[in-house]
Amino acid sequence: MRENRIRKNWSQDKAVLCGWLAIPSSFSAEVIANEDLDAVLVDTQHGMIEVQMAITMLQAISTKGPAPMVRVNWNDPAPIMKLLDAGAYGVICPMINSREECERFVKACRYPPDGYRSFGPARGLLYGGPDYFEHANASVVTMAMIETREAMGRLDEIMSTKGLDGVYIGPSDLSIGLGHPPTLDPTAKEVLDAIDLIYKTARKHNIVPGIHTPGGKVAKKWIDKGFRLCALSNDARLLAAQVKSEIAAARG
Amino acid sequence: MRENRIRKNWSQDKAVLCGWLAIPSSFSAEVIANEDLDAVLVDTQHGMIEVQMAITMLQAISTKGPAPMVRVNWNDPAPIMKLLDAGAYGVICPMINSREECERFVKACRYPPDGYRSFGPARGLLYGGPDYFEHANASVVTMAMIETREAMGRLDEIMSTKGLDGVYIGPSDLSIGLGHPPTLDPTAKEVLDAIDLIYKTARKHNIVPGIHTPGGKVAKKWIDKGFRLCALSNDARLLAAQVKSEIAAARG
Amino acid sequence: MRENRIRKNWSQDKAVLCGWLAIPSSFSAEVIANEDLDAVLVDTQHGMIEVQMAITMLQAISTKGPAPMVRVNWNDPAPIMKLLDAGAYGVICPMINSREECERFVKACRYPPDGYRSFGPARGLLYGGPDYFEHANASVVTMAMIETREAMGRLDEIMSTKGLDGVYIGPSDLSIGLGHPPTLDPTAKEVLDAIDLIYKTARKHNIVPGIHTPGGKVAKKWIDKGFRLCALSNDARLLAAQVKSEIAAARG
Amino acid sequence: MRENRIRKNWSQDKAVLCGWLAIPSSFSAEVIANEDLDAVLVDTQHGMIEVQMAITMLQAISTKGPAPMVRVNWNDPAPIMKLLDAGAYGVICPMINSREECERFVKACRYPPDGYRSFGPARGLLYGGPDYFEHANASVVTMAMIETREAMGRLDEIMSTKGLDGVYIGPSDLSIGLGHPPTLDPTAKEVLDAIDLIYKTARKHNIVPGIHTPGGKVAKKWIDKGFRLCALSNDARLLAAQVKSEIAAARG
Amino acid sequence: MRENRIRKNWSQDKAVLCGWLAIPSSFSAEVIANEDLDAVLVDTQHGMIEVQMAITMLQAISTKGPAPMVRVNWNDPAPIMKLLDAGAYGVICPMINSREECERFVKACRYPPDGYRSFGPARGLLYGGPDYFEHANASVVTMAMIETREAMGRLDEIMSTKGLDGVYIGPSDLSIGLGHPPTLDPTAKEVLDAIDLIYKTARKHNIVPGIHTPGGKVAKKWIDKGFRLCALSNDARLLAAQVKSEIAAARG
Amino acid sequence: MRENRIRKNWSQDKAVLCGWLAIPSSFSAEVIANEDLDAVLVDTQHGMIEVQMAITMLQAISTKGPAPMVRVNWNDPAPIMKLLDAGAYGVICPMINSREECERFVKACRYPPDGYRSFGPARGLLYGGPDYFEHANASVVTMAMIETREAMGRLDEIMSTKGLDGVYIGPSDLSIGLGHPPTLDPTAKEVLDAIDLIYKTARKHNIVPGIHTPGGKVAKKWIDKGFRLCALSNDARLLAAQVKSEIAAARG
Repeated sequence: MRENRIRKNWSQDKAVLCGWLAIPSSFSAEVIANEDLDAVLVDTQHGMIEVQMAITMLQAISTKGPAPMVRVNWNDPAPIMKLLDAGAYGVICPMINSREECERFVKACRYPPDGYRSFGPARGLLYGGPDYFEHANASVVTMAMIETREAMGRLDEIMSTKGLDGVYIGPSDLSIGLGHPPTLDPTAKEVLDAIDLIYKTARKHNIVPGIHTPGGKVAKKWIDKGFRLCALSNDARLLAAQVKSEIAAARG
Repeated sequence: MRENRIRKNWSQDKAVLCGWLAIPSSFSAEVIANEDLDAVLVDTQHGMIEVQMAITMLQAISTKGPAPMVRVNWNDPAPIMKLLDAGAYGVICPMINSREECERFVKACRYPPDGYRSFGPARGLLYGGPDYFEHANASVVTMAMIETREAMGRLDEIMSTKGLDGVYIGPSDLSIGLGHPPTLDPTAKEVLDAIDLIYKTARKHNIVPGIHTPGGKVAKKWIDKGFRLCALSNDARLLAAQVKSEIAAARG
Repeated sequence: MRENRIRKNWSQDKAVLCGWLAIPSSFSAEVIANEDLDAVLVDTQHGMIEVQMAITMLQAISTKGPAPMVRVNWNDPAPIMKLLDAGAYGVICPMINSREECERFVKACRYPPDGYRSFGPARGLLYGGPDYFEHANASVVTMAMIETREAMGRLDEIMSTKGLDGVYIGPSDLSIGLGHPPTLDPTAKEVLDAIDLIYKTARKHNIVPGIHTPGGKVAKKWIDKGFRLCALSNDARLLAAQVKSEIAAARG
Repeated sequence: MRENRIRKNWSQDKAVLCGWLAIPSSFSAEVIANEDLDAVLVDTQHGMIEVQMAITMLQAISTKGPAPMVRVNWNDPAPIMKLLDAGAYGVICPMINSREECERFVKACRYPPDGYRSFGPARGLLYGGPDYFEHANASVVTMAMIETREAMGRLDEIMSTKGLDGVYIGPSDLSIGLGHPPTLDPTAKEVLDAIDLIYKTARKHNIVPGIHTPGGKVAKKWIDKGFRLCALSNDARLLAAQVKSEIAAARG
Repeated sequence: MRENRIRKNWSQDKAVLCGWLAIPSSFSAEVIANEDLDAVLVDTQHGMIEVQMAITMLQAISTKGPAPMVRVNWNDPAPIMKLLDAGAYGVICPMINSREECERFVKACRYPPDGYRSFGPARGLLYGGPDYFEHANASVVTMAMIETREAMGRLDEIMSTKGLDGVYIGPSDLSIGLGHPPTLDPTAKEVLDAIDLIYKTARKHNIVPGIHTPGGKVAKKWIDKGFRLCALSNDARLLAAQVKSEIAAARG
Repeated sequence: MRENRIRKNWSQDKAVLCGWLAIPSSFSAEVIANEDLDAVLVDTQHGMIEVQMAITMLQAISTKGPAPMVRVNWNDPAPIMKLLDAGAYGVICPMINSREECERFVKACRYPPDGYRSFGPARGLLYGGPDYFEHANASVVTMAMIETREAMGRLDEIMSTKGLDGVYIGPSDLSIGLGHPPTLDPTAKEVLDAIDLIYKTARKHNIVPGIHTPGGKVAKKWIDKGFRLCALSNDARLLAAQVKSEIAAARG
């Protein structure tokens, strides 16, 4: 099976720098995958992307070196399994608030006896190779999002779930969950403390801490602190930012 | 009929700052149309966009203020008329090298007796209003691209075509046509002289000079010089540029 | 945030007349949105429309004045949140049979602390404006469908759910649920009594009663009675009806 | 090869009543094809439909009895041949103004030695049957649109083109071409005279006269006069008309 | 209502030979439906196909004689009901492990009082006919997949579910569930015994046993044994097999 | 620029074995590209594929080793240039009957001064690399189809066109053109003589002879004879053949 670059980086204690796709297009996906990233994620939760479109975007990512990841729209086995069948090498699942929910997620990513994933890796075989089944359980990466007050009260319970590879912080939802306005670069002490606690708990359980960022500068800060998967805003926001700045230059 | 913002700007001697879409997605189209631009163009020539997709993108642009434009893939009445029917308020046509070609283009945008456009403005009626037919000939903007050595020898012939509203310079093709490498910000004297000549000839014939740019800084330069339609690179290139810069920041 | 025309009408005790889309096309969506309606709804339950297509249809509706609504295919947070992120200003959820189900629905439409909606309103920001987060909880409209015998036994329980804005009657399902054949214009006393009870209970709980209709005549009847959201059949049925009548005229 | 219902009707001197599709959706196509029509046409000229979408619409039409037709977007062999390969049994070609143009059109629909159609009837074989090649030249129907002043001056030249099966009048374009506003139900004497002349010339050359109509009543008028292919407005306009009338009823 | 060929075959104790679609295309669907099969199934679980695409594929199947079937991606009422509304005449549901799950599945396929299916059979009416509602409960076929160790322990409980028409064995998942590598032609005694037990239990409960196969030879074996629905691998695998063999011939 | 495997094979006098795609799906494209082929071609002439879909298929091919090729639907610069911009490394153009037509084709594939290709290789840069412009003229492969009696009379004129890399024989069209029924494995002496003459003339002009085949056995025959590009039927036909044979096995 083709090596999973996410795991490879982690085995070398290198961070995974991740592109994040919200635009439903295999062309913009390939534009991003062409850059010097370790992974590119198709966001089917808040991106304007559903599974049928995501499949073509996973193909586009596969033309280049970054590992293909997805964020599923909910903790639901149907899209999790379908996107794995479509060749995703890593899955981020939103809104994990308990051990039970975390197991439901992780086991959807693992064939029996480790989980209940159903067999039929259509594109997985094309991308991963004919020995996909033998290695998929050990290769596919699972990350649970911690983004509610409820989850903050159950960090150990969630992070000790067997088979869970990491946690991923969505600063906006975490901020809202703790009573603050949404922001990708939180400054509220309560939120920063929560991020710190998630980070330390992840380290304690030997799973990988990851966090969403508004861009490279903040990503660097978190990577320096020890986070090992950082995504850079998303394609739509980066595009808007660049356009705004060009317009400003043009309008003088 | 809904006013054409392109003509309105021109009537006030204000430049039209134009977004340029190469990504086949109505979502990224709306992201761009949401910014402070005067027009947004769907590029069906070099963009990865065909007419069916362009229709949804013209709808997306219509949710916001910029005027909807298109670049057709060739001087062919079928896509010209279809994209006008889909609500485009301006058409840029590539590779116009003679009066005959220019007439073929311009007349495809005009109902008889001014041209040979066929009637059936499906979405044009929805966007423009029920009196679309009465005003379309006077409202729709036509711009011919000057980008070959052949065209340089026929500037007067082309620019005096009845009904032509402007010319648009593609610096890359013009550079290649004159024997230089492609660039959106030419420095070769021969190319700059050609741009200058196109500009002056356009002014002489009372049509609007426009030019493609790599971004806001160069756009400002041309607008200051007198160009009245400048497009800012394209969405795919702007996206790649922003991603590159975020990656550089993240990687330190 | 852009005003929600549904709430505005309701605040003035004016009915919301609603178009209903079952045809998967952003063009037919815009054709309908071009008419004198207060809202247009994309039906992802019984319409031949899934979320990816619905996004382009919400864009099409946004080119015109009616408020964009959706019916989700089930009481599932994934499509509810995705369609809100895509800019829907109102959600109708089918088959609500208990307080627990109703809370699951309503809270999926509200950011914490009112609910558990996850943050990332991609197109919501484009349609609603940059202050979307501040006003979304108060602006987005939620309507639960009452269409089973089970729900009829729990009207107070359901309609007193905090954050629920209205109920919507599907006469066909309600008829079937009560043992009658499906019809959009019921005459069976049991069904009419149920509609009356739903109406009165809604009024008692200060939420808005709405009902699906086969067309304008029946809609007028219900609006006169006090219903404040009435949808007109759907695009596919209206199209078939019109075609049938033209064929009859042609065939003499 | 499956019988062509268009030819069958004509052989019995029965008019072909034709649905007309401008909405890009295979579902609305099937809704129309489900009605009592003799043919259903996918309009890739003024409809918001390109060839890729048209293919799925031709499939939808094939689930029912009406013969599948197309209007191509221009007299261009590429879409003509592709849509025939996709199973169209009849082609209407816009803007035929000379014998040369008419031959270019008709021959694109015929395999050598009758024309220059290229072989590869992918879906044609599925719809028509394995003996498609043997019968296609004799079965596929070709109709040229007469809609300009130029064409009016060359009726005999055009209508005597070998292999041409009929002419189709677009009253709007014909009206514009003759200096009148566009209308599907012309009353200007000059236009009515032109229609009459086209009709008589068609009859003289033993080809079938057809005409576009705003609906059943006008269609009946023309059928009674002798026209043998009449299309009923289009799906988008019929839909809008029905919605308008339902709204009027609802608003009282 | 149009007769259900699946039930017809079963009533005559004839096996249903079923094509299986994993390629998201209405054209390949029609290619398969054109062959001598009794049913063609759109696989939205492991196929690269989601519901929006499946609708066009069900249309393509409807152009030919085989009955249209679907496999849903999970035991979830939303896709089950949507695909039935789209005209599916049979549903296979994966991963049924208990009576409760089986009832949830079967009742999603039945209108009240037999189940909780919601009314709105958009394309079902077009394919099935105007009396669809009267006959749908009795006509639509439901098959539960037995593919886990858990389900093996509850065969009687599952198979005695009221309204269940058959069971379908996925040999790969069943093999994995029982601790063996995935294969469509199992030879492990434990797996073969499980298949035998499923077969006998189905016969005992008077429901139809079905099984997935790698191709015609194995299908014949199972049909001879008494299975009454056998699918032939899937389109993607058959295509790959044929290409491999042609390449081998070409490369000598 | 990424090496062109087609040219590499030819430089070593090795045949290019080519897959041929008629099914509009990026998944089936990747299934084929996963096999041991030298090139995979997207057929936009007789395949049910238009340019927008072809772009995603070229992406799918790019995930694997075979070189991406296209057949354009006609000798028209718009699709030729768009598909090159989308990353095609080789273009087959149908129905070339004269030197003039051949130049129009070949020059559409070459930047000035060799031709008139317009600059903007959106996906070409992603697939080919940043030095695409420098090498594209020398790398992109052009093949003209010889398939009419007219072309047979002008072989030297066509094949001596500067920049033409090869000719491609479509046996079906060639057969029809010479008065025989269409077949991919001709036996008529006149057709075989024509093929032989095309072969010898190509060799005389030092361009590459290629031919379409019904499968591997015939491909081997032609490769042994000296043809250096042979395509294997197409995906739709291979799929149908394999299904037929599995059905036969199943039905015994």
